[in-house]
Amino acid sequence: MFGVEKILHESTPFDTSTVISITVFISLICLCIIIGHLLEENRWANESITSLLLGVASGGVVLLIRKGQNSRILVFNEELFFIYLLPPIIFNAGFQVKKKQFFKNFSTILSFGVVGTLISFCLVSVGVQFLLKKIGLTQLSVNDYLALGAILSATDSVCTLQVLNQDDTPLLYSVVFGEGVVNDATSIVLFNAVQSLDLSNLSAMTALALLGTFLYLFITSTLLGVLVGLLSAFIIKKLYLSRHSTDREIALMMLMAYLSYMIAELMDLSGILTVFFCGVVMSHYTWHNVSESSRITSKHAFATMSFISETFIFLYVGMDTLDIDKWKESNASVGTYLAVSSAMLSLILIGRAAFVFPLANILNYTKKNSDKKINFSTQFIIWWAGLMRGAVTVALSYNAFSGSVEVSNERSLMISCTLIVVLFSTLLFGTVTKPLIRAILGAPRHAVSYASDIPSLEYLDIPFLESQENQDNPENQETNLNGDEEPRQRRGGFSLIMKYPTGAVHHIWRKFDNKFMRPVFGGRGFVTYEPASPTGAADISHEQ
Amino acid sequence: MFGVEKILHESTPFDTSTVISITVFISLICLCIIIGHLLEENRWANESITSLLLGVASGGVVLLIRKGQNSRILVFNEELFFIYLLPPIIFNAGFQVKKKQFFKNFSTILSFGVVGTLISFCLVSVGVQFLLKKIGLTQLSVNDYLALGAILSATDSVCTLQVLNQDDTPLLYSVVFGEGVVNDATSIVLFNAVQSLDLSNLSAMTALALLGTFLYLFITSTLLGVLVGLLSAFIIKKLYLSRHSTDREIALMMLMAYLSYMIAELMDLSGILTVFFCGVVMSHYTWHNVSESSRITSKHAFATMSFISETFIFLYVGMDTLDIDKWKESNASVGTYLAVSSAMLSLILIGRAAFVFPLANILNYTKKNSDKKINFSTQFIIWWAGLMRGAVTVALSYNAFSGSVEVSNERSLMISCTLIVVLFSTLLFGTVTKPLIRAILGAPRHAVSYASDIPSLEYLDIPFLESQENQDNPENQETNLNGDEEPRQRRGGFSLIMKYPTGAVHHIWRKFDNKFMRPVFGGRGFVTYEPASPTGAADISHEQ
Repeated sequence: MFGVEKILHESTPFDTSTVISITVFISLICLCIIIGHLLEENRWANESITSLLLGVASGGVVLLIRKGQNSRILVFNEELFFIYLLPPIIFNAGFQVKKKQFFKNFSTILSFGVVGTLISFCLVSVGVQFLLKKIGLTQLSVNDYLALGAILSATDSVCTLQVLNQDDTPLLYSVVFGEGVVNDATSIVLFNAVQSLDLSNLSAMTALALLGTFLYLFITSTLLGVLVGLLSAFIIKKLYLSRHSTDREIALMMLMAYLSYMIAELMDLSGILTVFFCGVVMSHYTWHNVSESSRITSKHAFATMSFISETFIFLYVGMDTLDIDKWKESNASVGTYLAVSSAMLSLILIGRAAFVFPLANILNYTKKNSDKKINFSTQFIIWWAGLMRGAVTVALSYNAFSGSVEVSNERSLMISCTLIVVLFSTLLFGTVTKPLIRAILGAPRHAVSYASDIPSLEYLDIPFLESQENQDNPENQETNLNGDEEPRQRRGGFSLIMKYPTGAVHHIWRKFDNKFMRPVFGGRGFVTYEPASPTGAADISHEQ
Repeated sequence: MFGVEKILHESTPFDTSTVISITVFISLICLCIIIGHLLEENRWANESITSLLLGVASGGVVLLIRKGQNSRILVFNEELFFIYLLPPIIFNAGFQVKKKQFFKNFSTILSFGVVGTLISFCLVSVGVQFLLKKIGLTQLSVNDYLALGAILSATDSVCTLQVLNQDDTPLLYSVVFGEGVVNDATSIVLFNAVQSLDLSNLSAMTALALLGTFLYLFITSTLLGVLVGLLSAFIIKKLYLSRHSTDREIALMMLMAYLSYMIAELMDLSGILTVFFCGVVMSHYTWHNVSESSRITSKHAFATMSFISETFIFLYVGMDTLDIDKWKESNASVGTYLAVSSAMLSLILIGRAAFVFPLANILNYTKKNSDKKINFSTQFIIWWAGLMRGAVTVALSYNAFSGSVEVSNERSLMISCTLIVVLFSTLLFGTVTKPLIRAILGAPRHAVSYASDIPSLEYLDIPFLESQENQDNPENQETNLNGDEEPRQRRGGFSLIMKYPTGAVHHIWRKFDNKFMRPVFGGRGFVTYEPASPTGAADISHEQ
């Protein structure tokens, strides 16, 4: 038919290459989901590893198709990573985190995340300078070495989430994951500080300024997140008191969380910290102000978004590894690659060991209760589980060593070797961690394979089942409904709380929360459904 | 503190302007949601109008801040629109559409969408050529006039969705909305055909080729959507038979729907049609194969995504209206603006009247049942509700008249006037339609204010309440559970089906569906929950 070809040819009003890369990535993510499901019973595999390997494999296929020219479908884009992929992951982590465990271990998390990262940063910076010079690299500056210190100190909280399990190992999970969030923030702050530092007039003042900056960033970022979270709770409570609209509620929660990240970035704060605490506050207040269907939807929709972003990141990093141009640019021998990568890897191992074991023992020393002490096997796993490096490392590495005015062989080499480190650490440490935890700590309480689904359901069913009975006793409710505490720990109750300072702080907080915060911002037991409202009451009867 | 400023300054590793525009847009969307909620009881307003006006207002504010330089925060981007914003809206429309009503009116929808759009296209093309020459514009070519014909024939299905209500006026909704989807596809095909047409050897062959192309596009696009939908049902049924993972299920549904759109675009088919039918098939099969929490989540999450995209589009268009550069470029007097815009508007009015009334009467003539005939007041509303022009019009107009080699005053004028038409038609027709329907057809069966929430809940509660009782009688179930039929229409039952040919087709389809399709692809009553599975059974007890 004459003309058809021509008409069809012009039919797409936008760039075809974008469509192609989106199509490829979506197909690959679908494949990852299916393969991940099939491998669910497998104790070695997890979704990160599957997508990383699938990324490498498809990078190889693209390379073959293009006859060795280039494996790039999408160029690694920091904007894509920091603006679109990271926020949903961190927000969901804050939203689903077991708040009680997290705050109970807050001091441990902070010391590991801040002091630990600083120790690791110093050690890796010095070590990398020493080792790279030994290998024979000369073009890098002091700033570059310091940047490498920050880059290699950024643990991968995404992969950690998949390897550890919130229900099986709550202490480990909260410490390693909490540390990961604080660590991300610390490394990014360090990295930016190092990048902009003028090293010619390095003084004690600079170090002080760095510390001041860090404290300022940490506090303001947290406050901003809490503020936006409370605002969302207040708006939804005031506006939708009697009349719920699920779509609007979820849209508002999602958008305000994202807004908190964006405002933090605009104010040059740490968006990661902000959106994390926004998630924590939203799950404590806002989530209880919305309709039943919104609760179910928000839990799962946020988890799904985070899941898709995670898978995408690993695919992306995997695919990027086979980017042949980068390898050509660095112009180094296999020996150099191996030497640099193993130098980096061993520095990561040493840098992490250098703070986990000492800090854990110092913290143990301050704790009177032997139950709360971190024993050696747990210390070992904390060390091990934080060895993985991920997308933050890749993103920072690109930021430091590419696109700048002076693109040299050695700078390309740094990017390539960072990628090798990420790939290797995720594959090796990611694979071994799950079996290792089982070997050291024994079998988990319930089957690992279903675990990923259970926390959210646990969260969900308790309000459904118990909210009527405990309606008029929020104090009691707090303990029973939070779903955060172990049965073992519940027994102690009031006497336990008064015994230890962190417990006392928590007790005061709960009093304050019940008396001032919840009446204003809503929360469990403080939102009244009007029986006559079309959805408030109807919702429940629909779903029951 | 020395150094702090410097460190903070460099802290964002990506373009600040992107962050600013995202922050502004998200804040505005939040504001739209809140204002939209407060105006819910208002019979004149709807969310489209709110966001359009808010967009214009914030465009004005930006203009003031930048002292009249430019109101652009985000340049109108076809890629953004066609790749990211449009698919979720159309997919959700297919996913939530009342299938029975849609297929019952399929012939009406097709004739309006295809034949009607063609009639409108011809009339507007000829009319615009005549009128613009009268006004004194001379630079435009025949191709431009034909493009304008296609651009001005694209009705706005997004705004229609907000003005009409699926529960109050099911016939109207399915006809106007269904027409909108087919019309979008038709106009885009026409537009692309016209853009690539060589008018020097225009012949009967070209017209035939155009028709052939259209049929080819329509059939293959639909088939592709159905195929991907069935594939998703099959995968989820096979893989998750006994073990459900909500996040994976939702991710897979979402990604496969998006994949269908992308594949269609890659194959130069109509992505809109494909993703629409993918949504229809997914709600018929896939949705019944997933866990209870996935059903609730998918319904609301897809609706939320669509809602956010819609709000964004209208904000975007509103903001774009005050883009001062465009107005300067066209270099025309207020009189010319008014003349061209009113010429366009009257052509839209005439072009739509020219096919709605004749076609409706022809269709009435073929129908024996007087119940199914479209009476004059309904015809009038169909005509009226399709007069709004929206983002598709804007996107096509930018595609035709900007960025090309020859940017002339008159081409910029066309873009500006299209924007005026979109703004004016959305504001005027959008505001008046709801009260008009009430005035003509009488008050709706239930309060309009809650209506947006009720369809989805209606959908949700029925499987919950009845799935146990009707488990072993899918035939009966189909009628009761679909939630698509009016009580009035249910009475007829089997005898009614055999009376009319469309009914017979539907009956055969249902037999086929129950015997062959559902056993393979799942669907209501054909998915067995294993009582021992951790989530299948547990899910239900959790939520009941």
